[in-house]
Amino acid sequence: MAQVFRIGIAGLGTVGASAVRILDRQADRLEASCGQPVRVTAVTARSRGKERGLDLDRFAWLDDPVALATSTEIDCFVELIGGEDGVAKAAVEAALGAGKHVVTANKALLARHGTKLAALAEKNGVTLQFEAAVAGGIPIIKTLREALAGNEVSHLFGILNGTCNYILSRMEDEGLAFEACLAEAQRLGYAEADPTFDIGGFDSAHKLAILTSLAFGTAIDAEAVHVEGISSISSIDIRMARELGYRIKLLGVAERTPTGIEQRVHPTMVPLSSAIAQVMGVTNAVTVAADAVREITLIGPGAGGDATASAVVADIADIARGVGGAPFGRPTTALRKAERAPMQRHHGGYYVRLTVHDRPGAAASIVNRFAQADISLESIVQHRSEDAAARDPAGRSGAPVPVVLITYATTEAAVRAAIDQALGDGYVVEAPQVIRIERE
Amino acid sequence: MAQVFRIGIAGLGTVGASAVRILDRQADRLEASCGQPVRVTAVTARSRGKERGLDLDRFAWLDDPVALATSTEIDCFVELIGGEDGVAKAAVEAALGAGKHVVTANKALLARHGTKLAALAEKNGVTLQFEAAVAGGIPIIKTLREALAGNEVSHLFGILNGTCNYILSRMEDEGLAFEACLAEAQRLGYAEADPTFDIGGFDSAHKLAILTSLAFGTAIDAEAVHVEGISSISSIDIRMARELGYRIKLLGVAERTPTGIEQRVHPTMVPLSSAIAQVMGVTNAVTVAADAVREITLIGPGAGGDATASAVVADIADIARGVGGAPFGRPTTALRKAERAPMQRHHGGYYVRLTVHDRPGAAASIVNRFAQADISLESIVQHRSEDAAARDPAGRSGAPVPVVLITYATTEAAVRAAIDQALGDGYVVEAPQVIRIERE
Repeated sequence: MAQVFRIGIAGLGTVGASAVRILDRQADRLEASCGQPVRVTAVTARSRGKERGLDLDRFAWLDDPVALATSTEIDCFVELIGGEDGVAKAAVEAALGAGKHVVTANKALLARHGTKLAALAEKNGVTLQFEAAVAGGIPIIKTLREALAGNEVSHLFGILNGTCNYILSRMEDEGLAFEACLAEAQRLGYAEADPTFDIGGFDSAHKLAILTSLAFGTAIDAEAVHVEGISSISSIDIRMARELGYRIKLLGVAERTPTGIEQRVHPTMVPLSSAIAQVMGVTNAVTVAADAVREITLIGPGAGGDATASAVVADIADIARGVGGAPFGRPTTALRKAERAPMQRHHGGYYVRLTVHDRPGAAASIVNRFAQADISLESIVQHRSEDAAARDPAGRSGAPVPVVLITYATTEAAVRAAIDQALGDGYVVEAPQVIRIERE
Repeated sequence: MAQVFRIGIAGLGTVGASAVRILDRQADRLEASCGQPVRVTAVTARSRGKERGLDLDRFAWLDDPVALATSTEIDCFVELIGGEDGVAKAAVEAALGAGKHVVTANKALLARHGTKLAALAEKNGVTLQFEAAVAGGIPIIKTLREALAGNEVSHLFGILNGTCNYILSRMEDEGLAFEACLAEAQRLGYAEADPTFDIGGFDSAHKLAILTSLAFGTAIDAEAVHVEGISSISSIDIRMARELGYRIKLLGVAERTPTGIEQRVHPTMVPLSSAIAQVMGVTNAVTVAADAVREITLIGPGAGGDATASAVVADIADIARGVGGAPFGRPTTALRKAERAPMQRHHGGYYVRLTVHDRPGAAASIVNRFAQADISLESIVQHRSEDAAARDPAGRSGAPVPVVLITYATTEAAVRAAIDQALGDGYVVEAPQVIRIERE
């Protein structure tokens, strides 16, 4: 029998437990494809006694993740603890320093310290793999790093957070308000008790920072991500999007522009007919545009124990097969510092919803402000409710109504300036809603 | 400078020429990610003088592909000649025998001889890669072989032929007949002068046989693929599909069933809301269902010089990085012989269109025959044209009208038996149309 490839797993939550089960179930196949048996030999978790449906007696148990990471009983350390600092970081650093390969699903850790950890892996001649850190079971890391090795990526965008996509899908399907859908997602276990990290866009931002590095050959720069969450999206935006031929998705977008690399996470209007618009519920999807391949889209489960463990096991199998290479596709010394493109110079279409006193001249004043800012409008929509129109045929009551503008491509700075001018005219009665459009 | 990884390319058509250009353009990046320079050193093609926009003087020129394949000037042989036998096969065998790695885009060669060629690669300790052979720029080979290493695949299906998908898309978009759309595809260069190989489903069948081997760990068995093409699809089928909530796609389907592994290529009704239904034009897509990852879908260009060359270059880069391993994910000795599931035992939903004399009792007799065969019907649709109804309110003229049935899951044998019985009743005036449904 060939030498055994020995795995130590730190963290036995749903992903860790599922990884153990998959490694058991697929033992024969993995041995055949890797040329050696792949076995879990040691584990650690917060509590040994917790019921997981696993027989832990087969494995060495260590209380300390750092001790597991440096144990002579393992060849590969699998970090499923989570958290951008603390014990996860200490254990990964210790493992790499001790010459162990590392597999991690920890996007926060990578977004913050990925380039340094990759350098440490390279220095020690070991591999750092992290397919499970972005988009769960979708092989987007492998695709960017390996399958698109001959491509210059120009642009990528993705639905990277299942919680947000679930909430937006339910808002559209059921016509419910954001808060009701969030509460439902929490009941179903799709959202945390404190949902800020997901709905604020921060989880997507971590994942986007990792994808950006792989796509553009730049050092990870999570600080550069412009982040907006979905809590400002109202039912009226969902309805207006549909009426105008769009659907609202929380996208992570990374794009090479003349002013640098844009990284942004925000609610986005995508054409109803696009592949990404069809992705509903907790599913994730990523589209990559590149010179040779033109455009590819990958769709699949972005979370869940089994789907995430599928990615963890794929990483383990790659390492056991002897796949090495730089974690971010190029040595860290070859990763460039990304020129940050300022958001004010973002160029694209915009959806702008302004709620105004329904008085003569209100819509006209807004449209004028956009014209003065040299912004061309594709659509202007003002619906008065039938009720309001019946009660007040001349529109003299001044009841609030939404005015929605869809712009042709312009700059963020121009749109913000036009809105500021419009606010000064005194018709607008609520905070403006601004949603960027991705037409491609 | 590290040792150069030397590439020999046989075949300088659109894919070969594009591969040369990509390897030039991405030379720095490939050197950084592979740890050594990757260079084309020798080429061959049918004609040296043909204008390709390439400076061939930089490369050694060999007239004979077999001589190139065994040249001491190359480490990796790239076969872009095509054809399941003849010089392509001879050159690939010679290269593997001479200890050269091989990259090929030749699905016909692999469908016929893939397992033997993989065994030859293993015997000689070299790699055989073929990402470009299936679905062009979509990394479906890498996904099945590597990213899903921890999964038991239950089912896969895909749009594997852009020509057929283009024709079906145009038939729906423009309401045109098959022949008109085929002629258009030929004008645009999407279909060959002799289109049989594409529209007959044979190209899809080759690709499906390769995917089946990777998905199920079985030796390639292209003979086992049940193949039907798209030439029988009429405008009325396209319209009826839409009315019933489906779209017709030429799918390749591989499925583990209780009676063995089904491999089939045929026009298929897919739900309008499914991701695969959104894939229009020459684009390809593959969906894989597996135990851990549940379901992932990859969408992208299935053909075109640059997209296919993107896959060729990814294979070259993998080999240059030192990625080895069995071409079909397991050693050929571990590939099982697939139990062929007989098509008569296929289990699923069916669309059946029978054109009948529009006489009282015609539809009833058909419905009775299906009931007698124990087939439950989800829908029965019979539209008389308004014209016919106006001219002949009692329906006595017997003008031909279509009767469309959608069945719940049943067997191929039952459907065929019911149709045979219905044909015996004498109402049916044209060859029956039978289209299988994939509901998932």
